Amino acid sequence: MGLWSVDKIEYIGRKGGTPETLGFRYYDADKVVAGKKMKDWLRFGVAWWHTFNQELVDPFGTGTAQRPYYKYTDPMDQALAKVDYAFELFTKLGVEYFCFHDRDIAPEGDTLRETNANLDKVVDKIEENMKATGIKLLWNTCSLFTNPRYFAGGATTPYADIYAYAGGQLKKSLEIGKRLGAENYVFWGGREGYESLWNTQMKREQDHIAEFYRMGHEYAKEIGMDAQFLIEPKPKEPTLHQYDFDAATTVAFLKTYGLDDIFKLNLEGNHANLAGHTYQHEVRYARETGFLGSLDANQGDKLIGWDMDEFPSDLYDAVSVMWEVLAAGGIGPHGGLNFDSKPRRSSFEAEDLFRSHIVGMDTFAAGLLVAAKMHEDGYIENVQAKRYESFDSGIGKSIEEGKESLASLESYALDKTQAELIAAERSDQLEVVKASINNYIVDALAEA
Amino acid sequence: MGLWSVDKIEYIGRKGGTPETLGFRYYDADKVVAGKKMKDWLRFGVAWWHTFNQELVDPFGTGTAQRPYYKYTDPMDQALAKVDYAFELFTKLGVEYFCFHDRDIAPEGDTLRETNANLDKVVDKIEENMKATGIKLLWNTCSLFTNPRYFAGGATTPYADIYAYAGGQLKKSLEIGKRLGAENYVFWGGREGYESLWNTQMKREQDHIAEFYRMGHEYAKEIGMDAQFLIEPKPKEPTLHQYDFDAATTVAFLKTYGLDDIFKLNLEGNHANLAGHTYQHEVRYARETGFLGSLDANQGDKLIGWDMDEFPSDLYDAVSVMWEVLAAGGIGPHGGLNFDSKPRRSSFEAEDLFRSHIVGMDTFAAGLLVAAKMHEDGYIENVQAKRYESFDSGIGKSIEEGKESLASLESYALDKTQAELIAAERSDQLEVVKASINNYIVDALAEA
Amino acid sequence: MGLWSVDKIEYIGRKGGTPETLGFRYYDADKVVAGKKMKDWLRFGVAWWHTFNQELVDPFGTGTAQRPYYKYTDPMDQALAKVDYAFELFTKLGVEYFCFHDRDIAPEGDTLRETNANLDKVVDKIEENMKATGIKLLWNTCSLFTNPRYFAGGATTPYADIYAYAGGQLKKSLEIGKRLGAENYVFWGGREGYESLWNTQMKREQDHIAEFYRMGHEYAKEIGMDAQFLIEPKPKEPTLHQYDFDAATTVAFLKTYGLDDIFKLNLEGNHANLAGHTYQHEVRYARETGFLGSLDANQGDKLIGWDMDEFPSDLYDAVSVMWEVLAAGGIGPHGGLNFDSKPRRSSFEAEDLFRSHIVGMDTFAAGLLVAAKMHEDGYIENVQAKRYESFDSGIGKSIEEGKESLASLESYALDKTQAELIAAERSDQLEVVKASINNYIVDALAEA
Amino acid sequence: MGLWSVDKIEYIGRKGGTPETLGFRYYDADKVVAGKKMKDWLRFGVAWWHTFNQELVDPFGTGTAQRPYYKYTDPMDQALAKVDYAFELFTKLGVEYFCFHDRDIAPEGDTLRETNANLDKVVDKIEENMKATGIKLLWNTCSLFTNPRYFAGGATTPYADIYAYAGGQLKKSLEIGKRLGAENYVFWGGREGYESLWNTQMKREQDHIAEFYRMGHEYAKEIGMDAQFLIEPKPKEPTLHQYDFDAATTVAFLKTYGLDDIFKLNLEGNHANLAGHTYQHEVRYARETGFLGSLDANQGDKLIGWDMDEFPSDLYDAVSVMWEVLAAGGIGPHGGLNFDSKPRRSSFEAEDLFRSHIVGMDTFAAGLLVAAKMHEDGYIENVQAKRYESFDSGIGKSIEEGKESLASLESYALDKTQAELIAAERSDQLEVVKASINNYIVDALAEA
Ligand SMILES: [Co+2]
Ligand SMILES: [Co+2]
Ligand SMILES: [Co+2]
Ligand SMILES: [Co+2]
Ligand SMILES: [Co+2]
Ligand SMILES: [Co+2]
Ligand SMILES: [Co+2]
Ligand SMILES: [Co+2]
Repeated sequence: MGLWSVDKIEYIGRKGGTPETLGFRYYDADKVVAGKKMKDWLRFGVAWWHTFNQELVDPFGTGTAQRPYYKYTDPMDQALAKVDYAFELFTKLGVEYFCFHDRDIAPEGDTLRETNANLDKVVDKIEENMKATGIKLLWNTCSLFTNPRYFAGGATTPYADIYAYAGGQLKKSLEIGKRLGAENYVFWGGREGYESLWNTQMKREQDHIAEFYRMGHEYAKEIGMDAQFLIEPKPKEPTLHQYDFDAATTVAFLKTYGLDDIFKLNLEGNHANLAGHTYQHEVRYARETGFLGSLDANQGDKLIGWDMDEFPSDLYDAVSVMWEVLAAGGIGPHGGLNFDSKPRRSSFEAEDLFRSHIVGMDTFAAGLLVAAKMHEDGYIENVQAKRYESFDSGIGKSIEEGKESLASLESYALDKTQAELIAAERSDQLEVVKASINNYIVDALAEA
Repeated sequence: MGLWSVDKIEYIGRKGGTPETLGFRYYDADKVVAGKKMKDWLRFGVAWWHTFNQELVDPFGTGTAQRPYYKYTDPMDQALAKVDYAFELFTKLGVEYFCFHDRDIAPEGDTLRETNANLDKVVDKIEENMKATGIKLLWNTCSLFTNPRYFAGGATTPYADIYAYAGGQLKKSLEIGKRLGAENYVFWGGREGYESLWNTQMKREQDHIAEFYRMGHEYAKEIGMDAQFLIEPKPKEPTLHQYDFDAATTVAFLKTYGLDDIFKLNLEGNHANLAGHTYQHEVRYARETGFLGSLDANQGDKLIGWDMDEFPSDLYDAVSVMWEVLAAGGIGPHGGLNFDSKPRRSSFEAEDLFRSHIVGMDTFAAGLLVAAKMHEDGYIENVQAKRYESFDSGIGKSIEEGKESLASLESYALDKTQAELIAAERSDQLEVVKASINNYIVDALAEA
Repeated sequence: MGLWSVDKIEYIGRKGGTPETLGFRYYDADKVVAGKKMKDWLRFGVAWWHTFNQELVDPFGTGTAQRPYYKYTDPMDQALAKVDYAFELFTKLGVEYFCFHDRDIAPEGDTLRETNANLDKVVDKIEENMKATGIKLLWNTCSLFTNPRYFAGGATTPYADIYAYAGGQLKKSLEIGKRLGAENYVFWGGREGYESLWNTQMKREQDHIAEFYRMGHEYAKEIGMDAQFLIEPKPKEPTLHQYDFDAATTVAFLKTYGLDDIFKLNLEGNHANLAGHTYQHEVRYARETGFLGSLDANQGDKLIGWDMDEFPSDLYDAVSVMWEVLAAGGIGPHGGLNFDSKPRRSSFEAEDLFRSHIVGMDTFAAGLLVAAKMHEDGYIENVQAKRYESFDSGIGKSIEEGKESLASLESYALDKTQAELIAAERSDQLEVVKASINNYIVDALAEA
Repeated sequence: MGLWSVDKIEYIGRKGGTPETLGFRYYDADKVVAGKKMKDWLRFGVAWWHTFNQELVDPFGTGTAQRPYYKYTDPMDQALAKVDYAFELFTKLGVEYFCFHDRDIAPEGDTLRETNANLDKVVDKIEENMKATGIKLLWNTCSLFTNPRYFAGGATTPYADIYAYAGGQLKKSLEIGKRLGAENYVFWGGREGYESLWNTQMKREQDHIAEFYRMGHEYAKEIGMDAQFLIEPKPKEPTLHQYDFDAATTVAFLKTYGLDDIFKLNLEGNHANLAGHTYQHEVRYARETGFLGSLDANQGDKLIGWDMDEFPSDLYDAVSVMWEVLAAGGIGPHGGLNFDSKPRRSSFEAEDLFRSHIVGMDTFAAGLLVAAKMHEDGYIENVQAKRYESFDSGIGKSIEEGKESLASLESYALDKTQAELIAAERSDQLEVVKASINNYIVDALAEA
C-alpha cells in the first residue's frame, strides 16, 4: 500500500459505498463540466502546514495527531521523510498542486544561513518528487509570524533588525519558488497588524511593508521568477487588527502604494466570515475589481470568533464560490483551490487526512456541478438581467453612458408622482431565488 | 424661558450641582486648550433628525417622545415650528453648528416639484435664523433611503426612474447647501448595498453611484458650492451589506473610481463598532491616509449588533478620538463633531434632549482635556518613538529611505543568531500604557 | 379567485413548473412520512402580525407593503376585513393553524375597556371563520411591548400602574384564548429585560414577572383554559438584555420560581442565532430537558446582529430541527410550526405573502423528508451508539448506574498507561458525518 | 534582590513615580475602605498557569516568554524551582492567595500513579512555603482538557476509560486541596461540550458529569474537605459549545441535577463577554440568585471572538464588579479575585509578570474606591429606589405581597386612559447616570 495504509482514492459516485467508504462521490477528475475537466476548474492544492505539520494542538491542549512519520525524531530526518509521505498522499488523492511556508518544510537553524542550508536539502528532495510525479507548486510563502522574533510582525515590526531578517528570509523563499516553478507567491500578514493603536505608528508600518513588497517584487523580476504575487486578507487573529482586514481593505492599501498592478488576492472562506462577510462576497468583490487570484478553501462557523480552518462541507458556500469561478472563467490567472484546512483535534487518525480531503474535494466538485447547471440555464443571469433592465435603454442607458446631469435627471423626474415611481419597481422575490438554489442543488447532484 | 422650559446651559464645573443639574461639567466653550478654544476644537453640531424628528420608535414599538411641537398637526406647520425650537435649542446649548437631511426639515409632496416647494419655505426660515444667531450649517445631505421608492437604494437602485429621481433630489439638496453655506456635504449610503449577491450586479451598481457622485460634484462646481464632500461608512443595516463598509473599503472605492481627490470621510463611532473596529481605528486610518473629514459622535455597545446611536459617554473612546484630532490639528479641513445620537426610548421627555446633548458635549470636552494633557507630555509620542527608534538610524533608516534590497538585507541578517535577534527587541509593556491612560483621565479631569 | 388574486396552492413536486410557479415542491400535506401525514408532523401556523400587519417598515424607512385591504381606512373596518383576507390565505395555503397577539387583531381604544370592546367584535368574526373552515388557533399572546406605556416592560416595568394594566390585558387575552380554543398560550418578553443594570433591580423585576405568570396560570385554571403555557426566549432586541436570553436561561428562571411544571418553550431560529446558538442546539436542549413546546420557524443571518425573521430556506437548519422533532415524536404536546417570518422589504407585493409561505413550508417539508430518511436508516443513531458504546457495559455501565466512586475509578485507572488510554479512543470522523448529511439531502429530495 | 530582579512592590500613590515605576497607584493593602481593609475586600490571587507556565504561545507562533527558571531543563527540577519563584513573586506583590490546576505544578508520568508521585513532591514544597509565608490557596482544580486523552472531554467524554481516569485524577486533586486548605475547589469544563450535536448525546453527557460532581462532593465529605465547590462558566472555546455557557445556563444545570446546594459560580470577565454579556451582568445575576462564589478577573475585547485573558485595566468593568461585591458584602463566602490573566505575547519579559499584576491590582483597587464612594452616597441605590417607588405602596406593594389577581388588576386598570398611564412614568435619564459614573471615577480617584 505504501507509506499510508490507504489505497488510491477513486471516484465511486453518489451511491457508491457506505458513508465510511474512502472514495469520491462527486469529484471525477477528468469529467468535463462547462467545457473543462473538473480538475482544471478546481486545481486542488494540499497545504503542507495543516496536512503534515499540524499536531492538532489548540490553546487549551497538546497535540492529538497520530502520524506515521513521528517515528523520525531528528527534525531533518522527519522533514525529509515527510516529503515522501506528502507526495504519496498527493498522488493517492489525485491532487496536482501543493503549497507551503518555508518553515513548514525544514527546521530552523540558529542563523538564517543554517536555516537556508536545511531548506536546500529538503527542496532538493521536493524537486525530485515533483519531476517524478508531475505535481506542481501552486504557491509558496514565508512564515513571518511563528518564530518569537516576529512577535510584533515581520515587515511591520518596529525592530529594524527583524525587518532585515524578514527580507533575507523572503529572498530565499522567492528563490525556492523560482526553482520549483511556483505559479503564485503568497503573503499572509500573520502578525502584520497591531495590538493597540496607542503604541503603533500605523502609517509608518504600512510604508515599511509596501517597501518590503517593492523589494520582493524587484528581486523576483531580477531572478526571473514570474509567479503571480498574492495577498491573503484576514481581519483579526493572531493580532487584534490585521492590516489586510478583507479584500477591499487590501485593495485600498495596494492602490495607495501603487502596488495594484503587481498583486492579486488569495481569498479564504473562514477569513471572510471573521471579517463579517460571506465567502461569496469576498470572491465577488475580487472578481469584479480584477483582483481574484487564488482560493484558500475552508470553512469556519459564523457563530465562532476564531479561525477554525475546517475542511469545507457547506454546499451553499461551495455553490456560490464556484458560480463566481465559472463567471470568471477560472480561479484567477494562476489560481487554484488550496485546502487551508485541518482535520479537527478529534479527527486525529492518519487516515483522517484522506477522509477530510475527500470531503473538501467532493464539496467543491458538488459546488461546481450545481453552479455549472445554474450557469447553463442562465438562471441567475436572467434574474439579474430582468432586475436591471431599466438601465438597458432609455434614461437608464443614457445614465450608464455618462450623458446625464443632475439637471437633466431633475427634468425627467420633477413631476413624476409617487404612484408612478412605485409602479416602476417590482418585488425581488428573493425567497424564491433562495428556494431555487436548493432545487438546483438537488437537481444537479441527483445526477451525480 | 422661551419655547423649551430650560434655561441656557452654563459651565458649572466638575463639582457644580448634583447629577441632575443641567450644566456643563467639562465643556467650557471659550477655555483655551492646546492653543485653541474648546469650541473651535470640537465644533459641535446638532443632528436635526434624531433631535427634532425622532419619535423614539423601534422595530417593536411606537414612539415615546414627548415634544412641545406635537401640538402642530399640519406637517408644514410643524416643520416650520421646529425651526424655532431648533434654533432656541442650539442657542441654549451653545452649539454653533447643525446638520440635516432634506427630508428632515420639510414634508414630501406627491412630486419632487411639490416637495421642493415645501423645502423652500422651511429653508427661508432656517436662513433667517442662521443670520439672526450666527449658527452655521456643518453639513446637509439627502435621504435616499426613507421613502419606499428607495427600497433597493437610491444611486444603486436597479430602477432607472428611481435613480433619476434621486439625482433630481440631490440637485435640490446641493442648492440648499450652497444657499445655507454648508461647510460639508455628506453622503450616507442608507440602502446603497445588497440583500443578496444572487440578484445583485455589484459592479454595475458601483459604476452607477460613482457616476452619481461625479454628477453631484460637477453640479456643485457649476453652482459655486465649495462644501467638502464626505462619505459616511457603515457596514450593515438596513441592508445586509452596505458598500461603504468602513473607512478602508470606502477609500478603495474612491481610488477605483478616481474620486479620492474629491471626497473625505465622515466617521461614526457606532458604525466603526458594527464593522468590527474601534472608533479610534477608523479615525486613525482616515487621519493617516488623508481622508479625515468630519465626525459623527455617538456610541453603541460592542455586544450589540445594530446601530444604537446613543449619546457618547465613554471616556476611553472620547480620549482616543480627541487624541487623533489633536494630532491632526483639527477635525478635517471643515469638520465638526455632529451628534448622530438620539436619546433612548426611555429618555422621552423634552428636557432629555438637553440632558443628553450635555452628556455628549461633556464627554468629548473631557476627551479633549485628557488628550491635550497626553500630547502636552508627549506621553504617547514618546512610547512610539522609543518603540520604533531602530528605524531612525542605521539599517532602519536606510530601509525607510528605500536604499535596501533583499540582497543587502540578507547580507545584514544572514549570520545573526536567534539570541541576537531576540535581544534587539523589548517588551511593549502595553499593560502599563493602558494603566497610564487611566491615570491621565483622572489627572486631567481632576483639574476641571 | 376571491380576495387574493391567487389560486389555491397545490403540490406540484420538485420538477413541477418554473421557479416562479406558485406550488409546493416538497410539501404534500397528506403524504405519510414516518407514520404520520406531513401536515400532522408540521402543523404549520401563519403569524397574524407579520402576515397581515407588517407594513415592511424598518428603522431607516417607511413601509413598502402593498396590501389589498389598505383600501379600508377606518381601523376597525380594516381589522374586520383582515379576518376575511386571513382565512382565505390560510385556506389557499392549506395551513390549518394561526397565531396572534391581542393588538394584532384590533385597534386600541383610549382605555382597556374600549380596547376590549374592539377585540370582542373581531374575535366574534374570527370565531365564525374558525367554525366555517376548521382552522385552529395554535396560540395567542398579548403584546406588552408595542404601546409607549410599555417602554420599560410590561410585567417587569418599574411602574405599578403599568403592571396592573398589563395584568388586565393578560386577563382578556386568556379569555380570548379560552374562547377560541388556543392550543398554547405564549409569552414573549418583548421588553422584559434591561437597558442598564445601573438603574435596574433585576431580581425584583423577576419576582414581579414570576408573580405575573402565577396569576396568569391561576386565572387560566379558573376559567378552564387548558392551553399549554410557553415562553419564547430571545437574548437581545429591543432591550440590551432580555431576561429570557435562551432556552437554558429560561429553564433556570422557571426552576428558580417553581414554574417549571407549568411552562414549556417556544423556540425561534433567529433568536437562537442572536444568542450565539444554532437552532438545532435550542431544540435539542429543550427536547432533552422536557421543555420542547412549539417552534417559531424563521431564519436570520449569523453575520447579522438583529432579528431578521426571514422565511426559512436553509436546508441544514430544517433538517436538524426536523430530526429533533422526529426524535421527540412531534413538536411538543400541542406544538406547531409558526412562521414568525416576514417577507423582506423588497418582497412588497401581496402575492409575496403566498410565495414566501410556500418557500417556508417547502423548506420544512424537505427537512422532514431528509430527517425521516436519516432516522429510517438509523444513521445518526448508529454514529452516536458507536461513539458511546463504552458506557453500555463494564465500567461505563457501572458509572451510569451510579455504582462507582472516585476511589473505585482511581483503582481502575491508576496504572493505565497513556498509550492504553489513547488506544481506547477513536477519531470521530465528523467531516464524514457532515458530508453524509449532504448526501441524505440529495438522496431524500431527489425522490420528491 | 532574590530570584526575581525586582524589589517588593510598594504603594506609591497616584502621583508617585513615572508610568514605568513599579509601584501601586491605588492598591494600598491595609487602607480601610467601606469598613474593611482593601486586601480583605479584594483577596487577590495569582494564577499558577498563566504566571509560571504560560510560554506565551498562540495558535500562530511559538512562545516568547523569558523566565529565569527556564535554565532548569529537567521537568521535575523546573517544577520544584517554580515553587520558589512563585512564593517570592506572591510575597513581593503582596498577594495572599494563589490558584492552580494539578497539571500546572508537576509533570505527568506515564500513569496516574507516577503523576501522583510527582505531585506529592511539589505539594510538599508548596506546603512548606505556605507555612513559611502565610500565603493561602484560594482554590485548586484539575485539568481535564490539556492531555490528548481528553480531546472529547473529561467527565463528558464518550470513553468510559477516560472518564474513569478523570475520576481518579479528581480524587488526587481533592486530596491536595484538603491538604493545602483550599478555600474553594473549581471546575472549569475545558472540553465539556460538543463540536457537533450530530454525534453527541447531550443529555447522556450531562448525566455523566452530574454523577462526576456527585462522586466528587461525596469524596470531599469523606475526607473532610470543606472547600466551596465552584463551576466556572464559559460559552465556547476550545469546543464549539461548552455546557456551562454562562451563569444562568449553569444554574439551570445545577437545579436540574439537584446540585444547586453544593455549587456556586466562579465568574470570569472575558468569558462573560464571549457569551454576549457584560461582566457586570454575570456578577449581578450570580449575586441575586445566591450563586456568587469567586471571581476570575481579566478582560478581553468585545470585538474579539476568543479568550484573551488580559490583565484588567478597564475602570468601567472594575467599578461595576466591585459595586456588586460591596452590595454582597464580599466576593462570595470564600471567594477572591484570581487573575486568570496573562501578559500578552509582547510582554515577554520576566518583569512584565510584576508590571501586569500591578496594573490588574490597581484597576480593581480603583474600582473598589469608586464603588465605595458610590455606595457611600447611595447614588445608585437612590436612582433605583426612585425608579421603583410605585411598588413600595398601594397597588404595587399589594402586587409584591401576592395579594392581587388578574381580575383585581383589571378592575384597577380598566378605565385608566392612555394619558393617565403615560403620566405615571418618568424618563430614566440614563445618559445622566452614565455621566455621573464618569464623575465618580474622577472624584474618587483624584483623592487616591
Ligand atoms: Co484561516
Ligand atoms: Co488561508
Ligand atoms: Co449610526
Ligand atoms: Co452617522
Ligand atoms: Co424573531
Ligand atoms: Co418568534
Ligand atoms: Co478565560
Ligand atoms: Co478563568
